[in-house]
Formats: sequence, structure tokens, C-alpha cells
Amino acid sequence: MRTTRTQVGIIGAGPAGLVLAHLLRQRGIDCVVLERQSRSYVEARIRAGVLEHGTVDLLTSLGLADRLHRERMVHHGIELLFERTAHRIPLTELAGREITIYGQHEVVKDLIAAWDGPLHFSVSSVALSGLSSGAPFVSYVDAAGVAQELVCDVIAGCDGFHGVSRAAIPPGVLTVHQRDYPHAWLGILAQAPPSSDELIYAHSPRGFALHSMRSPAVTRLYLQVRPDEDLDEWPDERIWSELRARLDRDDAWELADGPILERSVAAMRSFVVSPMQYGRLFLAGDAAHIVPPTGAKGLNLAVADVKVLADALTSWYAGGDRAGLDAYSATCLRRVWRVQHFSWWMTSMLHPTGDDPFDLALQLSQLRYVTSSRAAATSLAENYVGFPFP
Amino acid sequence: MRTTRTQVGIIGAGPAGLVLAHLLRQRGIDCVVLERQSRSYVEARIRAGVLEHGTVDLLTSLGLADRLHRERMVHHGIELLFERTAHRIPLTELAGREITIYGQHEVVKDLIAAWDGPLHFSVSSVALSGLSSGAPFVSYVDAAGVAQELVCDVIAGCDGFHGVSRAAIPPGVLTVHQRDYPHAWLGILAQAPPSSDELIYAHSPRGFALHSMRSPAVTRLYLQVRPDEDLDEWPDERIWSELRARLDRDDAWELADGPILERSVAAMRSFVVSPMQYGRLFLAGDAAHIVPPTGAKGLNLAVADVKVLADALTSWYAGGDRAGLDAYSATCLRRVWRVQHFSWWMTSMLHPTGDDPFDLALQLSQLRYVTSSRAAATSLAENYVGFPFP
Repeated sequence: MRTTRTQVGIIGAGPAGLVLAHLLRQRGIDCVVLERQSRSYVEARIRAGVLEHGTVDLLTSLGLADRLHRERMVHHGIELLFERTAHRIPLTELAGREITIYGQHEVVKDLIAAWDGPLHFSVSSVALSGLSSGAPFVSYVDAAGVAQELVCDVIAGCDGFHGVSRAAIPPGVLTVHQRDYPHAWLGILAQAPPSSDELIYAHSPRGFALHSMRSPAVTRLYLQVRPDEDLDEWPDERIWSELRARLDRDDAWELADGPILERSVAAMRSFVVSPMQYGRLFLAGDAAHIVPPTGAKGLNLAVADVKVLADALTSWYAGGDRAGLDAYSATCLRRVWRVQHFSWWMTSMLHPTGDDPFDLALQLSQLRYVTSSRAAATSLAENYVGFPFP
Repeated sequence: MRTTRTQVGIIGAGPAGLVLAHLLRQRGIDCVVLERQSRSYVEARIRAGVLEHGTVDLLTSLGLADRLHRERMVHHGIELLFERTAHRIPLTELAGREITIYGQHEVVKDLIAAWDGPLHFSVSSVALSGLSSGAPFVSYVDAAGVAQELVCDVIAGCDGFHGVSRAAIPPGVLTVHQRDYPHAWLGILAQAPPSSDELIYAHSPRGFALHSMRSPAVTRLYLQVRPDEDLDEWPDERIWSELRARLDRDDAWELADGPILERSVAAMRSFVVSPMQYGRLFLAGDAAHIVPPTGAKGLNLAVADVKVLADALTSWYAGGDRAGLDAYSATCLRRVWRVQHFSWWMTSMLHPTGDDPFDLALQLSQLRYVTSSRAAATSLAENYVGFPFP
């Protein structure tokens, strides 16, 4: 067993853990990042692709956004498509901020490439101990098979919904709020140019569909399916035909297709634990909360969490001020619940459930309202582009 | 059997039927109003009390609002109370229109007092026939026990949710959209001055409560209860004590009490039939749709319906133009669904269900948002004060 010491032990090298590491380094606080997966795995993991203005600003202020600014697509609106007609929500005009299209795995690549501190991939048997003591520690086995112990002042649990951090908190401490939706998203990445300059959120009697993109040559498309949907029942032609049906409209728009590079089915869930802290362990990102992807918020919420945590740790190390750390959970949860509500709202407005005609009529009424009232459109826009970070 | 003829037979002397009668008389169209209840009964029936600006304008243009303008209370905002803190939504500032507090039964009294055309109370055995013919007729027994037949060009079904008009439409014609809520309102009218200048919509862990008023001396108060609630289990002291608990707040506000003049329990329901027409029968108001009372919309929606119907009948009688009548249902249903959505939204935001902590957290998140975002507050305000009539 080899023992090392650091100030902040970070579990997980996703966006939350990596942004936290860079923020702490900027403020002169030592940290070590541990990641269960290999570098190539995390760099290829296809996830979200919509960055709020605040996220881009934060990455820019850390000097981590050079490639992002070169390669990103800036969007000033989204389309809501229903009853075969598209309606544009002019985000920038209504909310004063634009959004950035840039894949989460590209962010992760940039953050890893710019990191010269300790970052250990492919670790195993990670376990957190002493969380309610003044010197918590992480035991793990490194990629070379050597048992290690990392003693910290504080541990940041950035290891996602299925990670070990939240599970290390004793039973009874956390209150769980959860909702499972009766649908999932079948997502594909296709070698095809986007068929529209902006994202299209489509409500159709056949179900929801989303036209998105990753670059001028790569399209990202989603279909609402059942949570237990079997990908084997979706050959390429069925996927394209269903996308065409749901995205069909009365104007001359056409969906370009191409080779499918990646496909997956992801269930939709809302999940929050409260508090987001136990002793010296602070949870951030998906380790503490999951949002359905309809609001494009997961990555941005994780970045907001670690911004709050980095600020709190900075005050604590600077002069022993615990106020920020004590308020961490409450500060984060205000934003978390705003985002949870928005993500639930977008999800319930856009996904026909098929079992209640009253629900369907409410969805269409709401879509007509959101696309005809400036106040309602502004409400969608200000949530979608994101409120300023705390 | 005595037979009379008119142009429009109006079933029901509630706000829908009476406003329609006055609108038609203004345009020179004959009508006869039939009402199952006695005059004293309909004039004493306690119902809604919030009038949209458009409703007041319409009554004013008909010369029916002199007493209303003398006695009404004009409100420029409402309060949302949650987590023991009240937040004001400045309706007039945000939406440019105020609301009027004036009891529905006072409107009914004014409309009856000003009506000098045929209006028959206490009729019985009302039956509608020949609806798909060019000369539909209504058979009934008048207050004196004489069998009557009223032959019409058109029948307006303004006889409420439980009336005979909708029931006269053959099975299979109407599509019904319905939602029953797991709560009801226990409402009281009390001889007590209002404890606040404006309405207070209160979300409390104990359930929803509403502080409203009818006059400077009469308060109207509501408690969320179970749909099967037994009024006998609610002696006066329990009602006041529960109201005090739910309306309690951290500032110095106090609830004035007094003798309870009236009490009732009303279930909450959303209900829409489509289309709102069959042959020569046109449904208006509660005969076609019910909203939960949280949005204060029932009366206003009924008035909007009959405004559309009167305009359509005017064009038809003037030159045989059927377009307005053919579009009646679609025109009304656009507003109906906007109002249904708003009423459902207010209801689901303000009524804790007690069985899902995720719902409770969403409600509080939404209340915090509505009271902190100008866009969201404007969205509530523009719906609450009401969109202009078609």
C-alpha cells in the first residue's frame, strides 16, 4: 500500500471532475483525479453537446476553450415543430445569450490535453473512507495493479450516477427525489450534414424526435422510444424512416441521411439527492442529480456545481472560512431544482404518452402558447440558454 | 301543446345564456331563454368572482355594468404565498390589464334585471329535438304546468355541465377530454372584512388555500380537501383553524374571521367536448367545458364563447354567411385549450398531492421561478387577466 496526500481528491474524470481540477489548479489548490475508465474510453464517450454561455465563459477564463472557439457552432435559436409546422424560438433575441454546440467528449479531450497534474486512468477497487473525519481517504488499485491510498482534506465525488461516491454515504443521510419517465431516447450519430442550421425539437403523434448536430459533417438525432426498447429491432432503414416521419412538415424541409456511426438507447430519469454533501465528501454533477436530456442541461449543471465547490474551497483554504462549504448543497440545489423543473417541463411538453388524450391536448396547447406568447417564449429561452452561474 | 317560434332558443339563464341573450338583442336577433331553476335560485347561486378585463368591457358595451362599476373591487395584482413568504405578481404592470372582483351572481342579477325579453324560469321536462334539421325545437313544461314547444333556427346550449343540451347530442359525435383531480375545494363565504387587498393563493405543506373576497365586508375562502370530503366533519372552528395554518406567514399578516354565510365542497375537474356544435345546436360555457377554479376562468370562458356565437349568428342572419357558425367550435376551442392548460398549470403548481416528494419539489421550484423571473411572472399575468376576446 502506497500512501500519497493531496488537498482535494477528485473521483471521476468527466466534465465535473476535470473542470474542478482546472479551477483548483488556477487557485493554487492541489488535487488528484482518479478515473475508473481508460483515457481513450472517456475521450470517445458520446454525450451532450449543448453548452450554456456560462459554461463557455468558464472554460474560456480557464484558457481551455481555444479549440472550442475555433470549432464550435454558435446557435441563436431552436425550432419547435408540431402539427407539421416549425416555430422558431429566437434564444439570443429573447434571453440575451447564445448557445454553443460542441460535443461533451470534445470538452473532455481539451480538458485532459491541458492537464499536467496527477490524473490516474483505469484505476479499480475505488473506496472512500473516513468521510466524517478530518482526513478522508480514497483507496484504489492503480493501472499497474499497485494498491494506493490517497489521503485528502476533501473528496469531490464527480463519478456520475453509477459511481462509488454517493454509494459511500451511509444509509439514511440522503433524501432521494426521483421520477422515471415512460420513455427513452434512441440516439444516433450519423455521417450526414445537419439538415437545419439549428436544433429541431419535434412533437409528433408518433412520438418525439430531435434533430441536432455535432459538426458541419455529423448529425445527432434522437427518437422517443420505450424504456425497454431493443436496439436490435431498429435496423438503419427503420431509424431513418421513423425520423423522417416524425420530422415531416408542410414546408420543403428534408432530412439528409448517411452512415450511422454510433447508436444507443438511454432511459430518461429525474433524480436528486439532498444534501449534496456528507462530512468531507461533496457530490457534483450526475453523482448528485440526473436530468432528462430534453433541456440539454446535464453537463452545464455539473459545471455550475464545481464552480460553487471551487469558490467554497478557495475561501476555506484562504482563511478558514467554512461558510461556502456549509452552503454548498443549498447553493447548488437552488439551480438543480430550477433545471430539474425546466427539464421535466420540456420533457412533458414534447413526449406524447399515448395513453391520455387530455395530456396530448395540453401538450399542443402549451406548444401553441410557447410559440405565440413573447413572455412564454422568453421563459423557455432564459432557461435554455441558462441562468448566470452563482 | 302550445307552439311559439324564435330565432335562437337559449337553454339556461346563467352568465352564458344571459350574455348571449343581451348580445343577440343588441343585434336585433330574437331569442327566448329557458331556465330550469327559479329566479331567486339563480340570483343567489354563489360561484366565481373574478372578471377579466374583456368580460367587463363586454358588459359595459352592453350597458349592463353600471352597478358593477360602482361596486366592484379593482385588483392590480395577486399574491403567491409559499414557504411562509408572500410574493406579489403585479398583474397590471406585467400584462397591461387589471382584474375585477364582482360576484357571478351579481352579474346574473344585473343581466336579469336589464332583460325585458322572454325569459322563462322554473321550466321542466326540457327536451331538444330536430337538431340536425333546419328547424330544431325545444319542448318543455312551463312554470304554470303547460306543455310548450319552442321552434328555433338555432339552439344555444348554455345549461352547464349537468344540463340537457350536451346530453341531446347522439353518442359517438363528441370526443371527450377529461381529467379528475385528486382534490376538491371547500369554499366558505364569511361575514368578515378581507384580510388583504388582493387575492392570496397559498401553497402550504398542509394543502392549498385561497383568500379571496366579494366585497369590503365579505370574504371568500377556500381549502383544498379530498374529493369525498364530508362537510359535517368541518365545524366552523376547524375551518378557521385550518385556514389560519395554511395562510400563516412570517410577516405580521392576520386572518380576520366572522360568521360563515355559506359553505360547500366542489370537486375539481378539467373537461372539454369537441366539437362544441352538433347540427343546429351550439354548446357554450360549462355545457362544453369545465375548468378547475384555480385560474378563475369558468365565467370568463363562457362569456368568450357566446361572444363568438353572437358574432357568428349576426353574420349568418345578416347575409347568410355560415363561415362564422362553421368555425364556431374551432374558434372557441383555441381559447378553451389555452385556458384549460393555464387552469391545469395553476392547479398542479399549487395543490400538494402528498404522495410524491418529487412533485412537491417541482411545485416549489416553479413557484420560486414564477416569482423571480419577469418572463415567467408575465406569462402567469397575461393568462390570469385574460387574452383579448376573439
